[in-house]
Amino acid sequence: MDFEKELSRKTTWVQDAVAEYFPDSAGEGYAARLAEAMRYSLAAGGKRIRPLLLYESCLIHRADPEKAKPFMAAIEMIHTHSLIHDDLPALDNDELRRGKPTSHMMFGEAGAILAGDALLNLAYETVLNAFPDCYEEDRSPAPAGCMVVREVAADHMARRWRALKILAEKTGIHGMLGGQSVDVENDKRGNLNPDRPTLEYIYENKTAALLEAPLMIGAVLGGADPDEIRRMEETGSRLGAAFQIRDDILDLTATEETLGKPVKSDESNEKRTFVSLLGGVEKAETLVQQLTDEAIALLENVSGDTAFLKQLIRYMALRNS
Amino acid sequence: MDFEKELSRKTTWVQDAVAEYFPDSAGEGYAARLAEAMRYSLAAGGKRIRPLLLYESCLIHRADPEKAKPFMAAIEMIHTHSLIHDDLPALDNDELRRGKPTSHMMFGEAGAILAGDALLNLAYETVLNAFPDCYEEDRSPAPAGCMVVREVAADHMARRWRALKILAEKTGIHGMLGGQSVDVENDKRGNLNPDRPTLEYIYENKTAALLEAPLMIGAVLGGADPDEIRRMEETGSRLGAAFQIRDDILDLTATEETLGKPVKSDESNEKRTFVSLLGGVEKAETLVQQLTDEAIALLENVSGDTAFLKQLIRYMALRNS
Repeated sequence: MDFEKELSRKTTWVQDAVAEYFPDSAGEGYAARLAEAMRYSLAAGGKRIRPLLLYESCLIHRADPEKAKPFMAAIEMIHTHSLIHDDLPALDNDELRRGKPTSHMMFGEAGAILAGDALLNLAYETVLNAFPDCYEEDRSPAPAGCMVVREVAADHMARRWRALKILAEKTGIHGMLGGQSVDVENDKRGNLNPDRPTLEYIYENKTAALLEAPLMIGAVLGGADPDEIRRMEETGSRLGAAFQIRDDILDLTATEETLGKPVKSDESNEKRTFVSLLGGVEKAETLVQQLTDEAIALLENVSGDTAFLKQLIRYMALRNS
Repeated sequence: MDFEKELSRKTTWVQDAVAEYFPDSAGEGYAARLAEAMRYSLAAGGKRIRPLLLYESCLIHRADPEKAKPFMAAIEMIHTHSLIHDDLPALDNDELRRGKPTSHMMFGEAGAILAGDALLNLAYETVLNAFPDCYEEDRSPAPAGCMVVREVAADHMARRWRALKILAEKTGIHGMLGGQSVDVENDKRGNLNPDRPTLEYIYENKTAALLEAPLMIGAVLGGADPDEIRRMEETGSRLGAAFQIRDDILDLTATEETLGKPVKSDESNEKRTFVSLLGGVEKAETLVQQLTDEAIALLENVSGDTAFLKQLIRYMALRNS
């Protein structure tokens, strides 16, 4: 398998899938400006890592990626919501993201706040709208085998409900937003030396939660058992920590050109990361390697073809931009 | 029927129902501060009008209000999310709400932004978590009549899915957030003379959408047909316009003491409302009366006991605080 080629092919598929659900200002009438702001940040690029993880988890667990598209779009909307609000003057006060002006630079602070809100909501709306009440709809005429058809439909509805529940949990106070709030508090209170458990909490929630969700959702949609879903969650947890520590390392070692954003921002903000906590880039590198190995070892006990996902995890943890 | 007594009894029931789902900082560990901010605004009072409309719609359409509690909490969380973000310095810049300091005065701007985000998300999380996958769960042992039980469970799951879909639609770009964004744009661009269609769009979406949702959701949970659901939506639409125009009138005629917030804010902001558009309080009063009559007339064609709801609509449109 040529990993880079496969990655490129799958990324293209995922990019197209996600783009199907972008708001289009043309049809929005009065709310055109809001739709434009939402689309601006969604279309600003990014590697679509989270939808890609969902795609791959679908393949592993024999779920149909086609039917998981709304979930892929939803997870990218939630991620984009978090970037818009993180960049606000009251939070990180960033003017550039991926080399482009951030949302509030383009649409004003109020516009960016509302665009972020509307993207978070659109995530749920997208999933809820994508599935007609198939169960109810095939009720009236009762062809032969109809009971079986309805059973399957109800089964899939229950899986989607559970998948959406996971997405909500990993996004909210017990996930991304919880981690984000503790991160912000540490900054704002001038408590620039969070201890290791606090830093682990932040990484687990702010970053890992939204990598765990797509890995779990693919398993849920494929009807995997609870143990298998838990293994996917733990894989995402290790990957998330490795991914975030890699981010910290790159902030110190990369150039603004390769990253598309200012470097050494943690250092100039005197922000504690795993690099400063552990006492240097080298030790952080060792931890990234260890977490990556753990993530991959967890996949040994997952049924299905996990070869590509393992390579993807290495690629994400060892990236240089 | 003693309306005031009934209103008081039902409001107490709804207040208790909603409070069951408030976040509790005690159990939240690192995210305690975020939970505290979420709870602060949820507990700050308000008349719980939206959950009350849902409660009443359940009674009318023979849905069990007990099972609609998570939806009641969800709609109040979404409403509270919108108040927190509306009050932010970048939007209305209000320091008081219901006589108490607004969220950003208490928790800082970043804290208020994240509390609002987390409340919007918690709305979905609350509904999704409240219902175990009852369909899946009663699968394995197959007692007599099990097929019927599973049919009913799947039916109810489909209704909840549709109810959540309505909530998401009325909250997002095609509802509350769409209206809010156009309202903000009109302010920020110094376009203080929106025409009547624009003002109608703002009132329909910013205010009415979140009154339509609970009226519709009660009907959906009770298994009402599409025509009936549409009538509830239209009732909410008229009620929403009347309610918002009443707000505009009170801003001009009430005292800060009765309202619990500064009065004449629209005037001092030179903000166009239906009062200024129509050329005075008296004409606005006439329109409120007309919209109220229309809302009540729509309920004539709704089956079920709509007597209390009709009185509630009059009460909301004719309130003096």
